[in-house]
Amino acid sequence: MPSFINRRQMTIEWGHCDPGGIVFNSRYFEMFDISTWMLFEAALGVTAHELAETFAIVGLPLVDARANFLKPAKFGDVAEITSWVSEFRRSSFDIEHHLSINGELAVEGGETRVWAVRDIANPDKISALAIPADVIARFG
Amino acid sequence: MPSFINRRQMTIEWGHCDPGGIVFNSRYFEMFDISTWMLFEAALGVTAHELAETFAIVGLPLVDARANFLKPAKFGDVAEITSWVSEFRRSSFDIEHHLSINGELAVEGGETRVWAVRDIANPDKISALAIPADVIARFG
Amino acid sequence: MPSFINRRQMTIEWGHCDPGGIVFNSRYFEMFDISTWMLFEAALGVTAHELAETFAIVGLPLVDARANFLKPAKFGDVAEITSWVSEFRRSSFDIEHHLSINGELAVEGGETRVWAVRDIANPDKISALAIPADVIARFG
Amino acid sequence: MPSFINRRQMTIEWGHCDPGGIVFNSRYFEMFDISTWMLFEAALGVTAHELAETFAIVGLPLVDARANFLKPAKFGDVAEITSWVSEFRRSSFDIEHHLSINGELAVEGGETRVWAVRDIANPDKISALAIPADVIARFG
Repeated sequence: MPSFINRRQMTIEWGHCDPGGIVFNSRYFEMFDISTWMLFEAALGVTAHELAETFAIVGLPLVDARANFLKPAKFGDVAEITSWVSEFRRSSFDIEHHLSINGELAVEGGETRVWAVRDIANPDKISALAIPADVIARFG
Repeated sequence: MPSFINRRQMTIEWGHCDPGGIVFNSRYFEMFDISTWMLFEAALGVTAHELAETFAIVGLPLVDARANFLKPAKFGDVAEITSWVSEFRRSSFDIEHHLSINGELAVEGGETRVWAVRDIANPDKISALAIPADVIARFG
Repeated sequence: MPSFINRRQMTIEWGHCDPGGIVFNSRYFEMFDISTWMLFEAALGVTAHELAETFAIVGLPLVDARANFLKPAKFGDVAEITSWVSEFRRSSFDIEHHLSINGELAVEGGETRVWAVRDIANPDKISALAIPADVIARFG
Repeated sequence: MPSFINRRQMTIEWGHCDPGGIVFNSRYFEMFDISTWMLFEAALGVTAHELAETFAIVGLPLVDARANFLKPAKFGDVAEITSWVSEFRRSSFDIEHHLSINGELAVEGGETRVWAVRDIANPDKISALAIPADVIARFG
């Protein structure tokens, strides 16, 4: 079980929804992206904005994203999103997101990201680096 | 002076920003759209989702939108958006939005919308209707 | 091998990119969604807009979406997206999308969708229906 | 009359539309933003991507955007967008955009932008610079 979980609430907006009256799929990936930033912010105690400079990384590039749409969400619904790191590997990690409405799981999302630094030899490139032990420790 | 003002806070997301590192202009119009829904929700005491059925309207179609970009907003900035109706006319009205960061006005937005119902003769069309006096009264 | 493939080109826009200067992940899911509509339009010979009425369906609801980000795309890049149905099952099917830049695969996307009709007993619900044989036949 | 006009066609996507079945307003501002880049690309003969380095500018920051919504656009509509510079001033200029569907004007958009360089004294700031005469000349 993950010991560090981030929970946030947000209300589905008119502009998130498509002509079917339900949230357009790409919007969930926006919601999950910022949920990951908020998870790291909460776990590491730095603002998402300061994360890159604090850890000398270029960010947390996404290598894989996926979502399972179980129930539609619509305008005015209050969504609760819980997010946690499900696995840390040497330089990459998996995040899971559960978006629920009225206590029922509506969308299950997943991301794989890397801990990335600017390549010293070629500053136009980025390379994956081992995730510091104290970063992993913060997630329990 | 308007007597009814809606105030909300939101944090600028990574996905709101462009390669210049600042909020991409279309995102402000998303922020203003939902701010208008929230203003009506607060003033009329119904959820935005129920607004249409409660007042037998098809929505509040936008006929004009505009924004003045005074200062850039960037990832992690906490924006405060204040919104109010600056003028009610027979069947249309103007909303003003002020988006501030750290107490400084960053974007000034404006919208003109109509109070619209489905046309009885032609349900595919909508027509503007006089705004009920009790709706206007709620805004002070 | 699929016999019916849809190919389209699009140019990456400034507003598709994030502060890292590369396409923000949710934008790829927008690109894949419309690519699926275009694939069906091309295979079935009806406009995406007419698809629902022609086949008496409510659309092609998405139950699963996924993407693998292999190379970043940036402002001004010309992306070629090839899309095809990789598997038809009774009432659901898988679509694959390959987004390439300069002939190199940049993003691999996948979707699972259902052939859905409005539930007769409960018009607020939708239910999956067997995909007509002549629809499948059009994809080769 | 402007002598240089950019014309482009695009098809309205499912994901551009809201639960009312029409294009959500912020999407028009995305369409106009990229239309401006394409206008400059066509007039100046450099790709939008190369514009900044070719002219040693940081971009064409937007100071004002506005739109008039005359007729709704919906999924599958083919929109033609014509764009031109309506006025050049010392360091700022106005762009007009006409979005038509089936030859009828649906949205009238306008932008005011500046010709901006990085401030030498303070590289975190940008300042407006006189637009080169040969740039203006290219627009006729």
